[in-house]
Amino acid sequence: MLLHRHPSFELAAVTARAEAGRPLESVHPRTRVGLVLQEEIPLDVEAAVVAYPHGASAPVVAQLRAAGVRVVDLSADFRLRDLAVYEEWYGPHGAPSLIDEAVYGLPELNRAAIAGADLVANPGCYPTAALLALTPFRGAVQDVVIDAKSGVSGAGREPTATTHFNSANENVTPYKVGAHRHTPEIEQELGAQVLFTPHLVPLAQGELVSCYVRTSLGVEAVAAAYAGEPFVEVVQGPPGVLEVRDTNFCRISVHHDARTGRTMIFSAIDNLWKGAASQAVQNLNLMFGRPETEGLL
Amino acid sequence: MLLHRHPSFELAAVTARAEAGRPLESVHPRTRVGLVLQEEIPLDVEAAVVAYPHGASAPVVAQLRAAGVRVVDLSADFRLRDLAVYEEWYGPHGAPSLIDEAVYGLPELNRAAIAGADLVANPGCYPTAALLALTPFRGAVQDVVIDAKSGVSGAGREPTATTHFNSANENVTPYKVGAHRHTPEIEQELGAQVLFTPHLVPLAQGELVSCYVRTSLGVEAVAAAYAGEPFVEVVQGPPGVLEVRDTNFCRISVHHDARTGRTMIFSAIDNLWKGAASQAVQNLNLMFGRPETEGLL
Amino acid sequence: MLLHRHPSFELAAVTARAEAGRPLESVHPRTRVGLVLQEEIPLDVEAAVVAYPHGASAPVVAQLRAAGVRVVDLSADFRLRDLAVYEEWYGPHGAPSLIDEAVYGLPELNRAAIAGADLVANPGCYPTAALLALTPFRGAVQDVVIDAKSGVSGAGREPTATTHFNSANENVTPYKVGAHRHTPEIEQELGAQVLFTPHLVPLAQGELVSCYVRTSLGVEAVAAAYAGEPFVEVVQGPPGVLEVRDTNFCRISVHHDARTGRTMIFSAIDNLWKGAASQAVQNLNLMFGRPETEGLL
Amino acid sequence: MLLHRHPSFELAAVTARAEAGRPLESVHPRTRVGLVLQEEIPLDVEAAVVAYPHGASAPVVAQLRAAGVRVVDLSADFRLRDLAVYEEWYGPHGAPSLIDEAVYGLPELNRAAIAGADLVANPGCYPTAALLALTPFRGAVQDVVIDAKSGVSGAGREPTATTHFNSANENVTPYKVGAHRHTPEIEQELGAQVLFTPHLVPLAQGELVSCYVRTSLGVEAVAAAYAGEPFVEVVQGPPGVLEVRDTNFCRISVHHDARTGRTMIFSAIDNLWKGAASQAVQNLNLMFGRPETEGLL
Repeated sequence: MLLHRHPSFELAAVTARAEAGRPLESVHPRTRVGLVLQEEIPLDVEAAVVAYPHGASAPVVAQLRAAGVRVVDLSADFRLRDLAVYEEWYGPHGAPSLIDEAVYGLPELNRAAIAGADLVANPGCYPTAALLALTPFRGAVQDVVIDAKSGVSGAGREPTATTHFNSANENVTPYKVGAHRHTPEIEQELGAQVLFTPHLVPLAQGELVSCYVRTSLGVEAVAAAYAGEPFVEVVQGPPGVLEVRDTNFCRISVHHDARTGRTMIFSAIDNLWKGAASQAVQNLNLMFGRPETEGLL
Repeated sequence: MLLHRHPSFELAAVTARAEAGRPLESVHPRTRVGLVLQEEIPLDVEAAVVAYPHGASAPVVAQLRAAGVRVVDLSADFRLRDLAVYEEWYGPHGAPSLIDEAVYGLPELNRAAIAGADLVANPGCYPTAALLALTPFRGAVQDVVIDAKSGVSGAGREPTATTHFNSANENVTPYKVGAHRHTPEIEQELGAQVLFTPHLVPLAQGELVSCYVRTSLGVEAVAAAYAGEPFVEVVQGPPGVLEVRDTNFCRISVHHDARTGRTMIFSAIDNLWKGAASQAVQNLNLMFGRPETEGLL
Repeated sequence: MLLHRHPSFELAAVTARAEAGRPLESVHPRTRVGLVLQEEIPLDVEAAVVAYPHGASAPVVAQLRAAGVRVVDLSADFRLRDLAVYEEWYGPHGAPSLIDEAVYGLPELNRAAIAGADLVANPGCYPTAALLALTPFRGAVQDVVIDAKSGVSGAGREPTATTHFNSANENVTPYKVGAHRHTPEIEQELGAQVLFTPHLVPLAQGELVSCYVRTSLGVEAVAAAYAGEPFVEVVQGPPGVLEVRDTNFCRISVHHDARTGRTMIFSAIDNLWKGAASQAVQNLNLMFGRPETEGLL
Repeated sequence: MLLHRHPSFELAAVTARAEAGRPLESVHPRTRVGLVLQEEIPLDVEAAVVAYPHGASAPVVAQLRAAGVRVVDLSADFRLRDLAVYEEWYGPHGAPSLIDEAVYGLPELNRAAIAGADLVANPGCYPTAALLALTPFRGAVQDVVIDAKSGVSGAGREPTATTHFNSANENVTPYKVGAHRHTPEIEQELGAQVLFTPHLVPLAQGELVSCYVRTSLGVEAVAAAYAGEPFVEVVQGPPGVLEVRDTNFCRISVHHDARTGRTMIFSAIDNLWKGAASQAVQNLNLMFGRPETEGLL
């Protein structure tokens, strides 16, 4: 949808596996692009956004790169620079030779590198929110506790006991305690150890990341880091996820608690937008020299 | 309702201010007790459960105590033993002479004292969940970060911009950052400093408290602390609040993260039950020598 | 749970198929009865509540009846008196010889017959609400349109595309248009043709049935029909389903629209209580000569 | 927002009463237009979209029209052609002389008239969905029962007992039974009497209208009526409101029930889009000779 509406890109094809052959709008009812889902990976395009699960993504990306297609990959396959760390958390890697080529696609951190990249690893949703909250304190932060809350779209489209309405509704549950795969991605980019714990909350989409840290820097570091950023808004009161729903914005508030000496940073994004699809468009804009906000405001 | 159904207590009267004169069931539609809400405080009863806001509660409690009525007070007025701490967080106290008489009414901590008490201060909802999670580590815990998530009933029955369906639905928001009044109550009973941050999540009732600590004790301390407790269940996986909905149970899981050296404790209660009404009944059972679980299973 | 708490009944056993061998509370976390789910149907009991799907229920009921056990069957297998109608809507019947023995278990209509019955067919959730709304007009009603709204628990515990949180949340959808199997059950007991259309709404439990009819009777017929009924409340304003949540009550309002000459009746129940489990207990109370409200208030 | 993003219109000013002086984005957090809310009605513009309550709107519209500004009015003030009917349902009219000038702004019915109009009365949300469902049967329809379900945004932004999260959540309630002001609007455009009953359902935005009618026309009348319409989609299965969320689309399904001889039409819209804001843009497109879908796909 975002690409279809984009003034500078043309959406050439959408692929699917189980649902190939169906009109795009039969699977995504709000999309009315006139495309039929196709099984074949199109190689005669300038760029591709790959949205396969980790593991399945790497070979597809390799195929596209071999054909000279520039890629934004939404999976985890090219986010971690250290193959050993990848394999510890995800298992065998499908295209390790491409890891060095990949650029971590958080535009607020890596704008210049993304512009010249042929393979951009779009960050995970939690790392997007957590890193925007924490990187202003990079090098001066410790004792990092991250407590995240995500809507059910974060748990996938598959119907499971967990995603059943009557399980998720009126419920709040921590999950993957001490074991969520976004942990090494946050640590890699932050350069510090973190304890990251996600929770499932009863909403469709949206994500709040609450960070509790010790830092030698003042709260003003956050506003300073994001002056001029088009998609990061530093606000006074703590943000609610509804404020950024269906947008590419990240809203952040930062608070110092004198009693305990800790600093708290709250970061809200839409996990399906800034945490995935619209951030991919932001990356494409950078890669193809378009204005960074094009198609996103 | 809980009292009405209780085999050993008789519900003699229910008071109200704005709604006096109306049948109880017109205000609480699911209650069908046959009582009319009355304005006058009944003094010819053996016990009273007082559910006034803090500040307004103390004089009513004083009136009841002067008449010899044993009281469970749901407000914050008698939870803090140190008058100065109370006045710092809540303002002037309405009956400071009664503070010494009051017993903090968390049965799992104070069972014996509650049994002999004439004035029991029912804990706040967050302190109930947090203290049940943390007191097994009392004296051996530090760096305590508490991230709590509460349903909208925790925000009161008053219609406000915050409690409007379209504000709360599909939203998650931190509130009272660094300033929630349950903080000193937790610190008093735990004997350690805590950083406590509540969040509003879109459900009617239920509360999850996620605690991140450093402790010299092992995770087994929790199960040891609650062996034989009728209302605390130590479970393997992290608990969801729906599991304890409409019950007096608290479900707790505890996890040690070797990577970061931290221990995590998750504690789920129903904020309107174990966090308020049913805990009051548990206290009444203790005060009047009834079986602790009577009327609660 | 309702049976476990019931003062006159003893819950002897709970059966399951896939989950046999597990403690009851591992499947229903809020139940703490101390029973292990068993596969075998217990035949040495006085009564059984059977909660199998239609088709699967009939043989189990036959087995229990052969052993002299009195049965409340929650399935549709014994609700329809006409075998041909049953087979048209549900397929082959597993125990047709028991149909004549079965009594339709809506206590407000069939109190005397239920008291003497050995096999009671507990009504469907929609028929319960619809028949309590409409039977006061029986014999004097036509042009019946029933528009029903049900929470997701009505769609079953199975995780499906429909019951996925992100499908059901923020959605309203009609389903089984012109084809819902509760239609013949309503028509049988009402003695009139109805157009019945259910809708899925985003809540866990609760059911509102909106009936639009032409009748020669006045609105006072409803209050007259339910004078003295312990579980039917005729109210002025239209009822909300939340008012009867977790209760055996049915709340009904009735309105005549002079402009169009139609009468509207709104009926709210909890589909899992009055629409299923608590109505079964109400039937058991009648069958065993207990006070009809025992264990239900 | 829709206007801000529209390629052919320029958003010149946004007015407010209580909130004048605040940045637009402080009131509507997802809007980032850079405008400050102003109290004064701007008269030096080509067109205005007026979103005042009924009664308050008419004088503002009169002021704008006197200055030659073309107006789309979102209130009910100019929807009813018969002053007496208006005053019966709404009270005194503030600018009756403008009634004749106004065109009922449902583009699918009145495309040509809207194109030439200076004052367009944007339809109510319920009439939009109901009329799109029913007008294909105009002149050949009777016994019309309309049962509508709306999200809480339909109940207004004001915090009330009804819109409190804990009242609306997990609830379904009929309201304004036999008395909703959208009734005469539907009857005027349909040319037939209707019984219209709205219900509040627990979602933020979205509206489903279920129509039960007798008609001499076949179900194919609906597809025939909307062939070529850009924003009306006739679908096989009944539509869910989530399918049209945040769009200007209306999805309709139509079913004939041979048993009862009735025809059912289900119509889903987003009450804040096709039921209000995006339909206003569709009308502006027509009024100013722009492609009808501009800024809306």
